[in-house]
Order: sequence, then C-alpha cells, then structure tokens
Amino acid sequence: MKIVLLGSGNVASILGQALAEAEHDIIQVWSRKSENAASLANRLAASFTDTFTEVLEADVYIIAVSDQAIPTVVSQLPVTKGLVVHTSGATPLEVFADRFSSCGVFYPYQTFSKDRPISFRNVPILLEAKDPSSMLVMEQIANSLSDRVSHCNSQQRSAVHLAAAFACNFTNHLYQIADDLLQKEGLHFDIIRPLIRETAMKVMEHQPVEVQTGPAARNDHPTIERHMALLAGSDDLSAVYSLLTKHILNNRKIT
Amino acid sequence: MKIVLLGSGNVASILGQALAEAEHDIIQVWSRKSENAASLANRLAASFTDTFTEVLEADVYIIAVSDQAIPTVVSQLPVTKGLVVHTSGATPLEVFADRFSSCGVFYPYQTFSKDRPISFRNVPILLEAKDPSSMLVMEQIANSLSDRVSHCNSQQRSAVHLAAAFACNFTNHLYQIADDLLQKEGLHFDIIRPLIRETAMKVMEHQPVEVQTGPAARNDHPTIERHMALLAGSDDLSAVYSLLTKHILNNRKIT
Repeated sequence: MKIVLLGSGNVASILGQALAEAEHDIIQVWSRKSENAASLANRLAASFTDTFTEVLEADVYIIAVSDQAIPTVVSQLPVTKGLVVHTSGATPLEVFADRFSSCGVFYPYQTFSKDRPISFRNVPILLEAKDPSSMLVMEQIANSLSDRVSHCNSQQRSAVHLAAAFACNFTNHLYQIADDLLQKEGLHFDIIRPLIRETAMKVMEHQPVEVQTGPAARNDHPTIERHMALLAGSDDLSAVYSLLTKHILNNRKIT
Repeated sequence: MKIVLLGSGNVASILGQALAEAEHDIIQVWSRKSENAASLANRLAASFTDTFTEVLEADVYIIAVSDQAIPTVVSQLPVTKGLVVHTSGATPLEVFADRFSSCGVFYPYQTFSKDRPISFRNVPILLEAKDPSSMLVMEQIANSLSDRVSHCNSQQRSAVHLAAAFACNFTNHLYQIADDLLQKEGLHFDIIRPLIRETAMKVMEHQPVEVQTGPAARNDHPTIERHMALLAGSDDLSAVYSLLTKHILNNRKIT
C-alpha cells in the first residue's frame, strides 16, 4: 500500500516514523510549508510537496494537521479513490462530507512530543469508517502499528477527547501549579517527580476512585483550611483548590 | 539502634517494612487498636502494645499516625531520651513543644497504599530536626532507606504538602472525572491509561510548562467551546473545565 502523509507536526512525525518502522511505503509528505515537508520526508525516505495538485496517487492519505486546517485540506486534496483518513479526536467523520468514496478517522489516543520516542504498540488507536471496506484497510494499518486497536464512533470520540483534557492537559497544568509552589520555597521540581509518577502508576492497576487520597478524600477539614490559608495570597489558586476540593468531597467513595 | 513504631496505617506499614529490610531493629509496634498493632508487629517480627505505659525504651520513636492523632500521641508517649520523630507533611516541628529533648520530622514524600509495593530508595525523605545531633541520627536512618534525602524546614514542608494536593490528590480526581466521562459512553478506563502514564512520564524529564498541550495551551477556542457544549449537562464539570482552562490560558508559555 502506498501512503501519502499530509502534515508535518508532532502527530505526522511520530505516526510517519511508526508507519516507516512497520515497513509501510510512505511515498510522499505534503505540508503547507515546503521546508517542513522536506524535513519529514527526508527522515521517511519519501518525496515531498507543498502543492495539492502535486500530491501523488496513493492507496491511503493520512491527514495529520491541526483541527482548524482539516476542512481546508479536505476541500483541496484532489478527489481520489484511495482511502482518506484524518487523525483528530475532536473532528467528526462528517468533515469529509461526500468528497471521498472511502474515508475514516484514525485517532491515536496519546500525547505526542517530537523529541520523545514512544512505543506505538501501546498507543490506543480508535477507528471510525464510512463503510466496512474502508474499515478493513484501516484495521490492517492500525494493527500493524498497535496492539490496542478499537472502534469508536464520533460521539464516543468526542467524550474520549474531552476526557483527555481532564486526564492529560489539566493534569499537566496541576503539575505546573505544584512546580510554582515549590519554586516559591526554593525547592526543585525533582522533589515531587516520584509522587507524580506513583500517582499515575497507581491507576494503571486500580480505578481512580479506589486510590483517591488527601485531605478532601478523608474529609479532613483542618488540613483543607491550612492549605487554603497558605493560598490566601492567590485568588486564582484558591479558586482551583476550593473547587476541586468541593468536587472530591461531593464524589468521594464512602468507606 | 532500637526503634519503636507508633501507628499501623499505610505509612507505618510501608515505612516499617522498609526499615526492616534495611535491617533496623524494630522492637515494638504501638497502635491504638491492639489487633492492628499485632498484625503489623507480626510482619516486622516485633512485639506490640496498645498502651502507652507499656511502650519500651528505645533509641528512636517514629510516630506514623493520622495528623489529628499526633498531638495525643505526643502528649501520652512517656518522656524519653530517645529521638522522637513524626512523619507528617502537614504538621510543624512545634507539635513536640518541649516534651522531648531530641525530636524532628521525618517526612517520606510519596503516596502510599498498603497493597502496592514501592521502592523506598526513590522516595524523597524530607528532614527537619530540633538540633544537630537529632539531625545526625535522622540522616543516618533516612540514608539507609533512600537515595533522596534532603533538609526542609516547616514552612517549606507546608508548601511541599500543598503541592502534593495539586499534583497527586487533584490529579487523581481528574483521572476519576475522565473515567466517568468514558463510562458514560460505554468505554473502559483502559483506553486512557497510556495517556495518563505518558503525561506523567513527560514531566520526569521536562518542566510541566514546557510540555503543556491541549486546546487551552494553543488558544484553540473552537475546541474549548465544543468541550463546554459536551459538559452542558453538568454544572460541576463545566465549572472545573472552565476554571482550569482559564488558568492555563492565563499562565501559558507564549511560543
């Protein structure tokens, strides 16, 4: 199968690398910026272009661009009999309208950074297709990359994408708040890294509600009040602390 | 050195285990509940008691009870020339007043669950002592257990304990919210576990602000609005989402 990769950001880079390692034939990289296309194409031993009319005929087109750019790419990519997929969690299948006979969503559910190698075999890939024959091709590619392939309709994918905002984006921001609190006392972030790691590792085997700890979970109001007193100088942090504390108090598992 | 351990909860159990493995001589376990004292003492090959007047003479007394119970234990533990330490992040050194000539705080900075084995060598231990000779004894014990021993005064320890509320307690609660969102769509928590793990692993090497991702970090208001629309049925979750989003928008690293 010949594959054209559209995009050159984190997802395109890491997915392209995983496809190449699984010995797929990436024949071309398209990117809006020629130098980005060239750079990724070079690593994948593919040709490159920044011009839609120069996109080669292929069996599969993988659109891995920002959510906002997907509609433009969909409307400008020449009509093809090949399978066209996008990789966005937040974009419904309907973005393709009726432009392509074969299309789908190929969503790798992970946070990607260009400079961090990742084992794709553990990345869940969530698939949705316009029709069963598109799905067959997508499953073939997905299974060649990952051991965690599943089907997921657009409504489920919205929930999955939203859940990531809580469990990844907001979580990382809480790490940042912790970092700020430590820095103010002259302490290094290193001191909290083992705790962050263990907090994540605990839920690899347990449901989060079963391993919730801390003053709110044990209804320990004296400690909550001491924490709030420490935050008295920051309205922002007080608001985050008190809202999340209230939410834990209202949702804790009574033991 | 002969050690008496006071307490039988998660911290007492895991610390006791680590002390035993480092070949310290735990001679006795005290707990308010005799059966808990007996159970832990049995695992540590120590004697046990539930009565303060029966506590044996030792070189070191480690108080690992709930924060609320510390003042009671401090006031009822017979006066001794041995070193007396507590293990609480939220309790200042002053809780000992002048009752013991040698005292300090021995705070292992980690989240402990009885049923989860943990390598104590990676657990930061934060030490504060009333005087240098108490500190010397504490350092000797701490270094025998961990490679991450440091000093930390009561004010710093308050900040460290507060930071844990954000990076551990609140983070776990965000995992729970994600779990709830997935369950509503018939999806298993397994689907998000690799993302949670990678989110934590990213900050083992980077500062959180450098690896912040998601719609708020890239100022992507259409996606934020789609997420808010999905949460329209829940005032609680809408409030958490919009507050944390606002906080990221106000604190993002402009690239």
